[in-house]
Amino acid sequence: MEFVKIDTTSAHGRGEEGAKFIKDYMEAHGIQAQLIKDASTNPYVYGEIDVRAKRTLLVYNHYDVQPAEPLEKWNTDPFNPVERDGRIFGRGVGDDKGSLMARLQAVVEMGKPPLNVKFIYEGEEEIGSPNMDAFLQRHKDLLKADYVLWEGAGRGSSGAPEIVLGVKGLLYVELLLKTEKDLHSMYAPVARNPAWELVRTLNSLKSEDGKIRIPGFYDDVRWLSEEDVKYLKGDLKSMERALGQNLTPDFQRRLVEEPTCNIAGLYSGYIGEGSKTIIPSIAFAKLDFRLVPDQDPERVLSSLQRFLEGKGVEIKVWGKVRPYRTSIKSEVAQGLIASAREVYGMDPEVLPNSYGTGPMESFARILGNNQIADGVGVEHPGSNIHSFNENIFVQDYLKAKEWMKAFLKHLASRSA
Amino acid sequence: MEFVKIDTTSAHGRGEEGAKFIKDYMEAHGIQAQLIKDASTNPYVYGEIDVRAKRTLLVYNHYDVQPAEPLEKWNTDPFNPVERDGRIFGRGVGDDKGSLMARLQAVVEMGKPPLNVKFIYEGEEEIGSPNMDAFLQRHKDLLKADYVLWEGAGRGSSGAPEIVLGVKGLLYVELLLKTEKDLHSMYAPVARNPAWELVRTLNSLKSEDGKIRIPGFYDDVRWLSEEDVKYLKGDLKSMERALGQNLTPDFQRRLVEEPTCNIAGLYSGYIGEGSKTIIPSIAFAKLDFRLVPDQDPERVLSSLQRFLEGKGVEIKVWGKVRPYRTSIKSEVAQGLIASAREVYGMDPEVLPNSYGTGPMESFARILGNNQIADGVGVEHPGSNIHSFNENIFVQDYLKAKEWMKAFLKHLASRSA
Repeated sequence: MEFVKIDTTSAHGRGEEGAKFIKDYMEAHGIQAQLIKDASTNPYVYGEIDVRAKRTLLVYNHYDVQPAEPLEKWNTDPFNPVERDGRIFGRGVGDDKGSLMARLQAVVEMGKPPLNVKFIYEGEEEIGSPNMDAFLQRHKDLLKADYVLWEGAGRGSSGAPEIVLGVKGLLYVELLLKTEKDLHSMYAPVARNPAWELVRTLNSLKSEDGKIRIPGFYDDVRWLSEEDVKYLKGDLKSMERALGQNLTPDFQRRLVEEPTCNIAGLYSGYIGEGSKTIIPSIAFAKLDFRLVPDQDPERVLSSLQRFLEGKGVEIKVWGKVRPYRTSIKSEVAQGLIASAREVYGMDPEVLPNSYGTGPMESFARILGNNQIADGVGVEHPGSNIHSFNENIFVQDYLKAKEWMKAFLKHLASRSA
Repeated sequence: MEFVKIDTTSAHGRGEEGAKFIKDYMEAHGIQAQLIKDASTNPYVYGEIDVRAKRTLLVYNHYDVQPAEPLEKWNTDPFNPVERDGRIFGRGVGDDKGSLMARLQAVVEMGKPPLNVKFIYEGEEEIGSPNMDAFLQRHKDLLKADYVLWEGAGRGSSGAPEIVLGVKGLLYVELLLKTEKDLHSMYAPVARNPAWELVRTLNSLKSEDGKIRIPGFYDDVRWLSEEDVKYLKGDLKSMERALGQNLTPDFQRRLVEEPTCNIAGLYSGYIGEGSKTIIPSIAFAKLDFRLVPDQDPERVLSSLQRFLEGKGVEIKVWGKVRPYRTSIKSEVAQGLIASAREVYGMDPEVLPNSYGTGPMESFARILGNNQIADGVGVEHPGSNIHSFNENIFVQDYLKAKEWMKAFLKHLASRSA
């Protein structure tokens, strides 16, 4: 509760006070801690418990939070957490202060954990981790570990605890078509229209059944194995509610397994009220490709460039993130599954990768680690993270602490 | 020159002073004149010379002008016309004060014209003639005539005098697709995306070769006859310069003959700088269909509605104008052609209809007149109408006066 009271909104330049709080907390409980500030605005908090075990777990969390605005939508003060009907309301209780603290308290309560534990807390996650790669490069020895526990999920839509073994990658591009100038639309019988050319270009990227038609696009897709789909759950009704749309029962597998080509934005010509009769001189589309392991944004970009060659389309690149996936057979995954089953009395929900994107791949690549997984979190489907009235259940917080302890034990026994 | 000095920018609420000037001018030269103000802001100016002939010509012009802004782009004061290098520079010299005055002076100089002449001058043309239909309805007896001379063109890109026998129609619609809310683009494998649906919808409207695929779209097209294409000219190079694009030699026929489906605007999702990963909840396109005789905007709209039925596309209608075409064999057309040939010593350029749209059809329908044609104008291809440094050649003004006189004579002899 004290931690949540500290405003660590990185988008507002806040965070340092939260970093100090957590460093003090660690030191007060016998954990060696330090603040590391390289190029970042908010310092990284690093802590370590070395029990001379053969194996080491690195725990990643972030202490910064999303802006709480619009404040008037909150029923209570976002920075003055309250407990009500078994829940705690406050900014960051779900994302990510709750998971951070549940895990840390679990380790503290254990006294001496069964394997070495390192903690790395970031204060710039909510503004896109702009300094993370450089930080990892500079401190890769310090952060060396056998396993990485990612920031924490919680309970999935099925109610079961969630484990996520990877992330999708991303290629974000803008396709741009131009002529010399806007023209009166009376010239339409003979003049080029970039908007029409954009429509044709976009249409050529995807077939009616949703398959992406860029040659070679699916070549590197690592389709899900029988083992991978074993713990896929997901509740159809609650996902339909969340999206406000009807879905088919295979929605969960598709969300995990399928790479996408999404139109995120589209512009040409006159878009105000009423009418204007012009042939636009500019048309563009913003496309995000969510990539799955082992697709490579560089390779997809090359294929796209070849596919559109000679069509007069300029391609601007706005983002590239590689996908990542830890094997479900890895020790970290099996340790999370076994401990979740033990604590919650049910099979967890295991996503071979999340639907979305994250910087997991830089951790894997830079730290040379291929056992990175997300689990041991406090959120639930109604946690409203990034929104107003963010909340978690007290019970989920307590369960997460238990899970952390069980996970450490399982991991230690597996790696013994 | 005096007339051009009076600022009659209807978009700025100006015009009445110009109306009075022209009424006074008519009365000073023995023409009965009156101002008529119904619902309009700027009065209509009506004038009449009744020579007791069997036939009557109605001359339509407008005395209002487009805003002169941006003023800093003008080399001279737009409302203080100057003569330089054989040209007159000033707002409205081309559109439409020059044609108005050349015709009026021609009639005045004739003393007694060979047929009855009525003049109707509007002051709201540049703001879309919002009161014209009601005005025509209310005064259809006053405006009764055998022929209507439209506002005036000038010399075409070939250098020959231009005659235009009709206008294209218009159907302006907005196609709108929606879902309940924007979604994180990680849901793209399963969620509807209105932008993709819009792309598919638009793509279905037109085939690769530019043909419009709405069933029945071309059914009512009155294709050009051998006679219709006889006086089609147009200079390829100068049209290419005007559009900033390469064209094929059949450009002129296509501009006149082909109905179009133009994308004038396109919008969905995020269109700012950089990237945002969303599935948009809204996508729309603004489409203008230029229709040719005898297409009917109502019928095209019905066909479009049927074609898109069941696809979840909302169709908003922003404008409907019917096309119109006077026969090239009509007395008014033949009178214009013969008189142009006589005065300019060359075949005129005759467009069976303009590339663009205008309210000619309301004149035809409401006044029950099917001999409406445009000619006897003062513009040239570099007149910069609606733009800065608007200008006409003094020679073109003098020629237009001659043309008016010859036209009246030819018309009188044809209808004798």
